Amino acid sequence: MIGLSPIQIGFDAVTGALSPATGQYRKRLSDLEGVFRNGDAWSRAVKENADPLVYEVNEYKKDGSDLFFGTTTMQPGKVGDEYYMTRGHFHVRRDMGEFYCTQHGSGLLLLQNRDGKSETIEMREGTCAFIPPDWAHRSINTGCVPLVFTWFCNVLAGHDYAAIATRGMRMLAVERRGKFELVPNPNFQ
Amino acid sequence: MIGLSPIQIGFDAVTGALSPATGQYRKRLSDLEGVFRNGDAWSRAVKENADPLVYEVNEYKKDGSDLFFGTTTMQPGKVGDEYYMTRGHFHVRRDMGEFYCTQHGSGLLLLQNRDGKSETIEMREGTCAFIPPDWAHRSINTGCVPLVFTWFCNVLAGHDYAAIATRGMRMLAVERRGKFELVPNPNFQ
Repeated sequence: MIGLSPIQIGFDAVTGALSPATGQYRKRLSDLEGVFRNGDAWSRAVKENADPLVYEVNEYKKDGSDLFFGTTTMQPGKVGDEYYMTRGHFHVRRDMGEFYCTQHGSGLLLLQNRDGKSETIEMREGTCAFIPPDWAHRSINTGCVPLVFTWFCNVLAGHDYAAIATRGMRMLAVERRGKFELVPNPNFQ
Repeated sequence: MIGLSPIQIGFDAVTGALSPATGQYRKRLSDLEGVFRNGDAWSRAVKENADPLVYEVNEYKKDGSDLFFGTTTMQPGKVGDEYYMTRGHFHVRRDMGEFYCTQHGSGLLLLQNRDGKSETIEMREGTCAFIPPDWAHRSINTGCVPLVFTWFCNVLAGHDYAAIATRGMRMLAVERRGKFELVPNPNFQ
């Protein structure tokens, strides 16, 4: 194996841009079919708002390293009464957790274990969230500016989106009378 | 095993305090015998300055997690012409690296691989340093305020201080005419 070199990676706490990055992907609203409970509101928002960007992930990952890190930048917005959120996932490797450190904005980290137990962690600047192994996690931008966080994980952790896509999560983050509220998900299986 | 719980950990970017923390240690100047090349200056500084604090490490580490994280807070100061620094270490596990993200202050991350190749990364706010597996690393506070950084690592990585304690590092970070300079270490073996 060719040796890896130490390197400085700059990040913009407001945009989440990494310099240098080794990879990036974006999720527009059309990529998130089935994530929001109001399907009609989702269809309308995709059409009327020209399929808006919901979140973007930038990462620095090198073959031969055990760890990688990156940023997730979530735009503010809602579909019906639900705030913009990520799909949510378990790790494929049930023995591998993660850290999320909020850089900008405010949000909610919604977690759920295999028994369907639900937990939340407030995301705000100056805090890191410890995501233990085998807890599904979904980030939600409950604010009105981009939510930016850095994350640190084992390269072998892997993403398992199927469990959350099928069952949903027990709780929903919705807006009620202009304020964030956590309510039970009537469709949670 | 008892299940782990997700948790928010607050950190103070200026002091490095974690809330909550699971562990802490401090290194005073008397703990760093042999680290600085000027042994007389080191002895004098220990006595005359009442054995000053050089750095402090706070961590959040839970049994059952693959990753842990923490902060290192380094005071500004010098011994002779050398800036305050950490002891420097390889990981015991040669396949495990680390990330350092600077929160406050400015410094230098000095790295060295097993062949004695030397690299440096500037430490400043808004940057993370990628430390590849099997690169020894030493942090140096080259500024006049505390240098605070967060770090993320596998719990199994382990610390091997012996190689650096024995050989030293190829380069030294010294003050010349009031400014930071990197010079070859005449005692490097």
